[in-house]
Amino acid sequence: MTNNIINELFEKDNILIICHIRPDGDTIGCAYALYHALKGKNKNVCVACSSDITKKFHYITGGVSRLDVLFEPDYIVAVDTGDKSLFGDKLVQYADRVDMVIDHHPTNTGYGRINLIDSTKGSTGEIVTELLQSANINITPEIATCLYTSISTDTGCFRYSSTTSNTLRRAADMIDAGADIDDLNKRLFEIKSRQQFELEKMAFDNLRFYRNGTIAIIVITLEMVQRIGATDDDTDGLSVLPRRIEGVEVSFSIRETATENYRISARSDGRIDVSEICSSFGGGGHLRAAGCNINGVAEDVIKQLIDRVTEAYDGKKAD
Amino acid sequence: MTNNIINELFEKDNILIICHIRPDGDTIGCAYALYHALKGKNKNVCVACSSDITKKFHYITGGVSRLDVLFEPDYIVAVDTGDKSLFGDKLVQYADRVDMVIDHHPTNTGYGRINLIDSTKGSTGEIVTELLQSANINITPEIATCLYTSISTDTGCFRYSSTTSNTLRRAADMIDAGADIDDLNKRLFEIKSRQQFELEKMAFDNLRFYRNGTIAIIVITLEMVQRIGATDDDTDGLSVLPRRIEGVEVSFSIRETATENYRISARSDGRIDVSEICSSFGGGGHLRAAGCNINGVAEDVIKQLIDRVTEAYDGKKAD
Repeated sequence: MTNNIINELFEKDNILIICHIRPDGDTIGCAYALYHALKGKNKNVCVACSSDITKKFHYITGGVSRLDVLFEPDYIVAVDTGDKSLFGDKLVQYADRVDMVIDHHPTNTGYGRINLIDSTKGSTGEIVTELLQSANINITPEIATCLYTSISTDTGCFRYSSTTSNTLRRAADMIDAGADIDDLNKRLFEIKSRQQFELEKMAFDNLRFYRNGTIAIIVITLEMVQRIGATDDDTDGLSVLPRRIEGVEVSFSIRETATENYRISARSDGRIDVSEICSSFGGGGHLRAAGCNINGVAEDVIKQLIDRVTEAYDGKKAD
Repeated sequence: MTNNIINELFEKDNILIICHIRPDGDTIGCAYALYHALKGKNKNVCVACSSDITKKFHYITGGVSRLDVLFEPDYIVAVDTGDKSLFGDKLVQYADRVDMVIDHHPTNTGYGRINLIDSTKGSTGEIVTELLQSANINITPEIATCLYTSISTDTGCFRYSSTTSNTLRRAADMIDAGADIDDLNKRLFEIKSRQQFELEKMAFDNLRFYRNGTIAIIVITLEMVQRIGATDDDTDGLSVLPRRIEGVEVSFSIRETATENYRISARSDGRIDVSEICSSFGGGGHLRAAGCNINGVAEDVIKQLIDRVTEAYDGKKAD
């Protein structure tokens, strides 16, 4: 990627920056980093997202939950958005006229006129950091805060296997540029809400192990969420917890999103391909992380999942 | 610190490297980094520690728990050890003849002939990395593994406030030098033993809040530890958990080490000085992290701590 390409962006005006639905720290951080960089060049620019922004990231959006398109754009950038289907209802009309795609997902379909896709990077924030650096854009503390958020959240604070030495160096650059990592790390990784804590406690009390502790399942019911008064922010981190227990090879978090409808989040250590299991229920994903929806009562949903994983293990033995 | 100083170490032979008692990743990682670097120069060298090394760090020690002095040393180095009292029984005889102290604790008493102390660093590992780099010592993957362990464990995987851009850059250097961070992060930060998980669950079920949720206390009894079959490795991380709950300003983990004897680990967000509270029970520490021992039944121990914290809050109001 040369600096010529990102320079094109800074020659435009009336720029719309698009985040993916169910936005995470990476997409929001990248969008606002570009927003501030373009504002610094006196450009007319706005960030839009089909989903509301959870409170957790209001320090980036300036307290705003709804990010709407504010003007008819001349130039459209999509960040961290692997596919047009992730634009969501509000933004689907812009999906076929995207000028620049910046993303690190290997599955990105390259739907833009210019596609800056680098799947060796742990986050899209790492790419945006290098694009701004190569174009000699001044990285203000505000921009650094956005990009540190992107880089750190998408790598689980530098714990996930996507972390590289480059990830750490770009995060170091953002600290030097003024990101207050003491505040950010507390917000993003240290502090749990009382609701999150109560929900985790309940989920762990209900945690079930199968196949000699190689499969773990947590169930979060609507009743639990309502009793505690939990929000999406509170339930977010739960799906990664069971796979962290020693000996667990496959884990599922099963969250009731409507009565007798469960959203399944599956994780694997790589032995079993959870995308195959989720695909068989109409979902999809990757070898190690996948998802799907299943209707029914919790006990039936669990039984179906366990049966499918057991089949997968049996199939491996037969190989 | 110039490279001349560390060069002195590489001119010696029969070198003893000392770790502090109750050794953590920083002291063990630094000791073995120097050990391998010196072995690479064909030196006679050994690492010693008065405490046994827990299983968690056996990948560094090569499966060894006991680290004894193997020969009469000509040169003695102490790493990450702030005071001679931390040498422990087995090594107290060497306390007055230390040639080189390498440490990042601001309270280091400077008991060596040469004292390389830099309290701006998040870990002693960060200092050792720079010393080896400045002396142009070849950092092998083995050494990089030790130093990544030091740097990452002492900063809570780059989450604690002691983390700086320099911390991330030195860790990045260790990745480039061959530390397998995917394996290390899983070992050190991701995977919990079943015992650890069961103990956390029990501790959280017993978690108590006081003063409108500003004080949190977890109690770990001998009976709990024995019922689960937990080791020190399993109980280690527990003390940091309650202070991570939103609204908690002061937290205590109270662990029964012998019948009716409790080891108290106190944490504060900075409002209340927990070292003052622990000092009043004969312990000590820092503003935000301190410890002490109290005899008695759990309920009495808790009451005494709550009373002392309440006094501290009342004293602040009166100011």
